Amino acid sequence: MNATRTVVTTEVGIVGGGPAGLMLSHLLAKAGIDNIVVEKRDHETIRTTHRAGILEHGSVSLLTESGVDTRVLNEGHRHDGIDLRFGGESHRIDFRDLVGESVWLYPQNEVFVDLAASRERDGGDVRYSVCDTEVLDITTDTPKIRFAESDGRPVEIRCRILVGADGSQSICRKAIPGDVRTDHFIEYPFAWFGILTEAPPSAPELIYARSDYGFALISQRNESVQRMYFQCDPSEDASTWSEDRIWDELQRRVDGPDGFELQRGPIFEQMVLPFRSYVCEPMRHGNLFLAGDAGHTVPPTGAKGLNLALADVRVLFRALDSFFSTGSSDLLDAYSDTALQRVWKAQNFSYWMTSMLHTREDATPFENKRALGELAAVVGSRYGQQYLAEAYTGRPDR
Amino acid sequence: MNATRTVVTTEVGIVGGGPAGLMLSHLLAKAGIDNIVVEKRDHETIRTTHRAGILEHGSVSLLTESGVDTRVLNEGHRHDGIDLRFGGESHRIDFRDLVGESVWLYPQNEVFVDLAASRERDGGDVRYSVCDTEVLDITTDTPKIRFAESDGRPVEIRCRILVGADGSQSICRKAIPGDVRTDHFIEYPFAWFGILTEAPPSAPELIYARSDYGFALISQRNESVQRMYFQCDPSEDASTWSEDRIWDELQRRVDGPDGFELQRGPIFEQMVLPFRSYVCEPMRHGNLFLAGDAGHTVPPTGAKGLNLALADVRVLFRALDSFFSTGSSDLLDAYSDTALQRVWKAQNFSYWMTSMLHTREDATPFENKRALGELAAVVGSRYGQQYLAEAYTGRPDR
Repeated sequence: MNATRTVVTTEVGIVGGGPAGLMLSHLLAKAGIDNIVVEKRDHETIRTTHRAGILEHGSVSLLTESGVDTRVLNEGHRHDGIDLRFGGESHRIDFRDLVGESVWLYPQNEVFVDLAASRERDGGDVRYSVCDTEVLDITTDTPKIRFAESDGRPVEIRCRILVGADGSQSICRKAIPGDVRTDHFIEYPFAWFGILTEAPPSAPELIYARSDYGFALISQRNESVQRMYFQCDPSEDASTWSEDRIWDELQRRVDGPDGFELQRGPIFEQMVLPFRSYVCEPMRHGNLFLAGDAGHTVPPTGAKGLNLALADVRVLFRALDSFFSTGSSDLLDAYSDTALQRVWKAQNFSYWMTSMLHTREDATPFENKRALGELAAVVGSRYGQQYLAEAYTGRPDR
Repeated sequence: MNATRTVVTTEVGIVGGGPAGLMLSHLLAKAGIDNIVVEKRDHETIRTTHRAGILEHGSVSLLTESGVDTRVLNEGHRHDGIDLRFGGESHRIDFRDLVGESVWLYPQNEVFVDLAASRERDGGDVRYSVCDTEVLDITTDTPKIRFAESDGRPVEIRCRILVGADGSQSICRKAIPGDVRTDHFIEYPFAWFGILTEAPPSAPELIYARSDYGFALISQRNESVQRMYFQCDPSEDASTWSEDRIWDELQRRVDGPDGFELQRGPIFEQMVLPFRSYVCEPMRHGNLFLAGDAGHTVPPTGAKGLNLALADVRVLFRALDSFFSTGSSDLLDAYSDTALQRVWKAQNFSYWMTSMLHTREDATPFENKRALGELAAVVGSRYGQQYLAEAYTGRPDR
């Protein structure tokens, strides 16, 4: 195909049409800053991909106060706490009592639906199903995105600022030369086995459970569909597990003298989720800025991923708004450091929750007892509970 | 030597005349419970062995309210906070503001001096410089201690209850058969290089510093003698270090843009301190009860060792008092579990402080950044500071 490449110009070119990219596009548009989003997946694929489901109160405010949609308030479920369960006993962490905040159970794909509808309603330029995307000239004042539209027509977007919000496999991040980029990561010796089941809720709020058999998370989706996870080997083949085996494995991780029983039902999705921690430093190179999973991945324990992405967007939007309205690049220059301070705290929180709640095959009995001592110390101290609740619901310094 | 063995009887036989053993002896005597303490070291050796120097408020109350001595209040120094120093910046954790408590700087050997004087004043039976100590018949109702007095005369103490307060090399602990005892421990890939120096204080309160070169602790003893430590290799030979080299190593670990400078002076003691975590489970076998280092060792970060020993003694005294006054063994039966709950929390606190503040040669850059993220999260959150301050000054649930 040798078609002439269409050239379009805009202020901000955004690679990635997930929640981070669309949220940024929405905020920029509201501020009168022209932008275009390109996304390789089609709308339907994103809409039906099940991801995280817990929104910090700050994430909820961002959606509702910026005029995206208030559906989260009506169709989401406010959760005022979680249960930490260990030694067969549940200990409620009461967020409202402890720190006066809550989180919302509202699946990430619903956030996408709201954002996509909002962009469409407002006439936003969001191009799905593009392919062969590449970014060029990122250290110049006219960085470019090249791609082919879904019908094959080649396009070049010339912009002033380029944003990589294209997820953990980010092509934008890879455009930052290796000699100026540091990839920090750790692998964990376990992964999560996740299921979706047609069953009533087993509990009103999330249960994070540590047992001798490993971690389990009892989560919800709505009245008739539930989400549950249990720690497994990263090489586990989810397809070989029978429903009975899955239920028995989940149940024994929440067993206790209180007789807590999971509500079982048909399982219609079962898969092993990757599990790693990653941070790219810096999160900016030239006129390319990374936001969300493109810049960092957290393990799912503690549900920080989507919230961290939206927090990036909030900081980046402020910087872009300042740049386009005043010409000052001060906030843009500070973006990477500002975002990374929060990112490392969130990495620590996710790591802390992970290591406190998961078991390791190579752990000594000392290590297991110490982790139980840590859980006992946290739930046995109002300050410990508050420290956890504050980080879970969203630190005020974000 | 074939001398006839003198037999004496008492209610409680205590092996170990350090602070834990003497404190228990004091409390028992006050309650009218007859007891004898045997200690292999001589009084002068214990008096001149420099150990920990931070007392929780609960430990201070135990000394002052039980009538041992109030010298700690006059000659000790109340510390209302510590500094956490990282990235070359100090962050004060203000205990009084955060949790309304303080700790006291008062060396462990002064605690010993007070306790030894108090036992002598009250006519307590404390036998120093004994040798060949062994414990027998610990699962019977007449457990025994056999030893030779300092002049060689063999003695047997027949008691109702035996207490092992004989430190980390405890012979009492070793009398618990291996098949009912679990030794939980971890070694750390570092130790502490400790010095005593004739110099004025470099700071009014303790400074716990994390730097790229490793951990350092700037501590005090009195107006003219200071105690400092820095993380080193466990195989380090302290004697090969020149004073200049020691001072340079300490200084570079506290360097920062604020220009903080250590007050240097002649170093009159320099040694490498062992560094490990250990817990014996259970802390009771038959009529033998372990207290203090005999039952558990914590790394020195966070200064929990002596405080944990005194907390054991408090719980054990209550149980013994109940046993001898009512005949009920309920509290004695609960002793091990009760003590271990606190011990595992303290192990976690010591481990947490250690891992947050020390560097490891095999740590990835991710791990180092995460630890700095953790320090930033703690000092950046009032709840985080309170959680740390509460554990440092002594949890109320002790």
